Amino acid sequence: MAKDDRKPRRPRAETPRGFRDWFGPDVLARDAMLGAITEVYRRYGFDPLESSAIETVEALGKFLPDVDRPNEGVFAFQDDDETWLALRYDLTAPLARVYAQHQRDLPTPYRRYAVGPVWRNEKPGPGRFRQFTQCDADTVGAASVAADAEICAMLADALEAAGIARGDYLIRVNNRKVLNGVLEAIGLGDPEADAHARGVVSRSVDKLDKLGPEGVRLLLGEGRKDESGDFTKGAGLAPDRIELIMGFLDARRDDAAATCAALRDLVGHTGVGAEGVAELEEIAALLDAQSYGPERVVIDPSVVRGLGYYTGPVYEAELTFEILDDKGRKRQFGSVAGGGRYDDLVKRFTGQSTPATGVSIGVDRLLAALREKGRLAEAAQGPVVVCVMDRARMAQAQTICAELRREGIRAEVFLGGGNMGRQLKYADKRQSPVAVIEGEDETARGVLQLKDLRLGALLAQSIESNEAWKAQPAQLEIPRAELVAQVRAMLARRYDGAA
Amino acid sequence: MAKDDRKPRRPRAETPRGFRDWFGPDVLARDAMLGAITEVYRRYGFDPLESSAIETVEALGKFLPDVDRPNEGVFAFQDDDETWLALRYDLTAPLARVYAQHQRDLPTPYRRYAVGPVWRNEKPGPGRFRQFTQCDADTVGAASVAADAEICAMLADALEAAGIARGDYLIRVNNRKVLNGVLEAIGLGDPEADAHARGVVSRSVDKLDKLGPEGVRLLLGEGRKDESGDFTKGAGLAPDRIELIMGFLDARRDDAAATCAALRDLVGHTGVGAEGVAELEEIAALLDAQSYGPERVVIDPSVVRGLGYYTGPVYEAELTFEILDDKGRKRQFGSVAGGGRYDDLVKRFTGQSTPATGVSIGVDRLLAALREKGRLAEAAQGPVVVCVMDRARMAQAQTICAELRREGIRAEVFLGGGNMGRQLKYADKRQSPVAVIEGEDETARGVLQLKDLRLGALLAQSIESNEAWKAQPAQLEIPRAELVAQVRAMLARRYDGAA
Repeated sequence: MAKDDRKPRRPRAETPRGFRDWFGPDVLARDAMLGAITEVYRRYGFDPLESSAIETVEALGKFLPDVDRPNEGVFAFQDDDETWLALRYDLTAPLARVYAQHQRDLPTPYRRYAVGPVWRNEKPGPGRFRQFTQCDADTVGAASVAADAEICAMLADALEAAGIARGDYLIRVNNRKVLNGVLEAIGLGDPEADAHARGVVSRSVDKLDKLGPEGVRLLLGEGRKDESGDFTKGAGLAPDRIELIMGFLDARRDDAAATCAALRDLVGHTGVGAEGVAELEEIAALLDAQSYGPERVVIDPSVVRGLGYYTGPVYEAELTFEILDDKGRKRQFGSVAGGGRYDDLVKRFTGQSTPATGVSIGVDRLLAALREKGRLAEAAQGPVVVCVMDRARMAQAQTICAELRREGIRAEVFLGGGNMGRQLKYADKRQSPVAVIEGEDETARGVLQLKDLRLGALLAQSIESNEAWKAQPAQLEIPRAELVAQVRAMLARRYDGAA
Repeated sequence: MAKDDRKPRRPRAETPRGFRDWFGPDVLARDAMLGAITEVYRRYGFDPLESSAIETVEALGKFLPDVDRPNEGVFAFQDDDETWLALRYDLTAPLARVYAQHQRDLPTPYRRYAVGPVWRNEKPGPGRFRQFTQCDADTVGAASVAADAEICAMLADALEAAGIARGDYLIRVNNRKVLNGVLEAIGLGDPEADAHARGVVSRSVDKLDKLGPEGVRLLLGEGRKDESGDFTKGAGLAPDRIELIMGFLDARRDDAAATCAALRDLVGHTGVGAEGVAELEEIAALLDAQSYGPERVVIDPSVVRGLGYYTGPVYEAELTFEILDDKGRKRQFGSVAGGGRYDDLVKRFTGQSTPATGVSIGVDRLLAALREKGRLAEAAQGPVVVCVMDRARMAQAQTICAELRREGIRAEVFLGGGNMGRQLKYADKRQSPVAVIEGEDETARGVLQLKDLRLGALLAQSIESNEAWKAQPAQLEIPRAELVAQVRAMLARRYDGAA
């Protein structure tokens, strides 16, 4: 009985663990950035695709539900008909499924872009969320590395359109085939027989950014003890082989021709290595012809993208300006986008090899970079707020709003309860530039009061007074008929030098 | 052993049951429509909110996971820490959670709009998907029906901005309180003691659109046998009570004043009914003052929105033009948006009553209506396609594209393999207006060939020849230096009268 007496507990008003909500200015800034990027994508002939957020687990492929932990890596659940479904964890796996499914109706090559949320069932951390937005562009069905070169050029244009200045970013291009040539050169040429050793080498090389050359050297040799004292067993390679790999990672020279020459010296005697170098030369030549020079795109063998599914050129866009990290140390902002060629994803479905290449922009990171550089689209100004002196005057207040909106001016009435002070406080929270006040007395005299809230805020800050501002009245009585013109004039006042 | 010999089965390339993919033109048309609508929302002072797609099941509230069928109605799954999570099934429940959670940081009243996917774990059917887009606007924290009137005016503006002409839509407004007054008048005034009977009456009345007055009359009385012979037991009301309810549903008169007078006659003697009528009068007066007359918004007691959580004014936008249904019969297009006041949703979390009102637009239905009326933003034209005569000429082809794009012209090179015929077929699939052809001979002579593909297509249709078109050459040799100007001129040719 005691149980029945208890009131039902109220649900907690909480975003689930690892998720977040986006509010007005952040949504607008992100959408403005994505709008600029997708406009570039469209100009390159890419078409939008919005696939379903839910895929069958078998189509996603990488993650298989296991009875005990069906949610490993993805958010998975079983449909009524027993099919395992999951929220997509990226936009590439769904593209492969869509292309395999709709191939006949799509042009070949198929250029598509996609913007949307993806979900990862991972442990959340600071700045690490379980839902985030990706912005991808891919070309499916084009074997030529001209498709890779095009994506690199487009990525450069997209970053600049988003607000990253030329000189503040660099697109670095490498080729998995060259790494495979290196593996062949050190006697690990068989993808199957040498799978384990190749994996250890690839993972070691991929830690270059994190551990530096010395750390990678240790991992390729005997092994490495980290700061906590934990020991990671190394690949156990002989010193000359380690030097060959380190030479590969360090092969970037002053220009693409010199870099490619250095790579050819290292791996030119292997079939796959020579092919990889030739592809890099072709990409460099194509970009050069379009004036994407080394200030925007470079060949850089130290780029080794983590994902296993790349089969040819890989590329990464990094922002080269410095920021202060959590501990106040200067560091480069780092990677905001990456991608490459993955020729085997569609084959999973169709059995036929289908060349594909594409890039994914980390939307949140790029947004953070723009914020860092002060290049976010300025948070849109709040609306004009029309104050309501008493409830009986609501119709007049709404009519004033309607007039302003009809002229394209963002406007709202105060719909809450409260006196003038409370209404102006609300207007302040809304970052409203102008308040319109209309009471019984004003109506009788055919006038309105306009309050310049931006000027009011500046004057209230008691910063050094600026005579030019003070010359403008913070409150103004205007004839009712001049509403739109006078509000426009007040909105046009400029206080740029302020604060 | 036999099992191990089997090759792994290829995954099926299929959208999961009840889901769909959206391709280029549909995505662009929908986004253009949503852009027009949200611009209106913003002009009314509404701010965007993007809440997480996943909520805790307890926050969603309506659907509780049961051990046997955790997915009843929603897609639900358990987090590592045992919390039940689910994909949101609408945008209103998340708003209530967000407002309860962030109340202190948000202005009050809080006007927000939201656009995004929602998921329903329901049986899919023709045109019924398990993921679809909603577009909502709500005002939280405003008790005044001025907020409801504002939403109705904004909905009218939004529909017109989306492309629905005035006269092709009608927003119908009713008030739950008036229905509650009717229930009180027939002796079912106690929400708790009479809960069952009130539920039967509400559900019967809600079937007016589907069954017509006679069907509702039967359901309110003894019961009704449907076409298949199945019998639904009725509410068993006495004839005079049934007439009172039918009188309420039929109380719409020529104008708002007359309708409100009729309603007052029916329920004016009950407290809640009188309050409801007064609110409708106030809404009508507010809209009238802003010139939203009966050609756009009417008071109509026959609107009874299904959802149980409405507590005051309810409204519905219906498109009044006729379309042909599946069986070729004419019928009104019907409802594309609806909403109302729900004063109790936030209270679930906070314990404090929080007034709220809002509307949800059925994005897919409105898009279908615009398609029906031929008012979709014209499917964007395909890109200019630059043909590649041989692989060695790729750099020149990409450079031509880069030049066009720099001038804002959408352009792409053909990246596939194949002869000129195949390339032009590709251009055709891309709905490309212009093809650029540049071979060795052209380069030597410093020229390019431009093909007008739209004219080519028209001529190929052998429709009645149009001398004005024929006067323009379908293929043109131009100096290389005139690329941009000549492509622009060809894009500017008009073939409006065609096909």
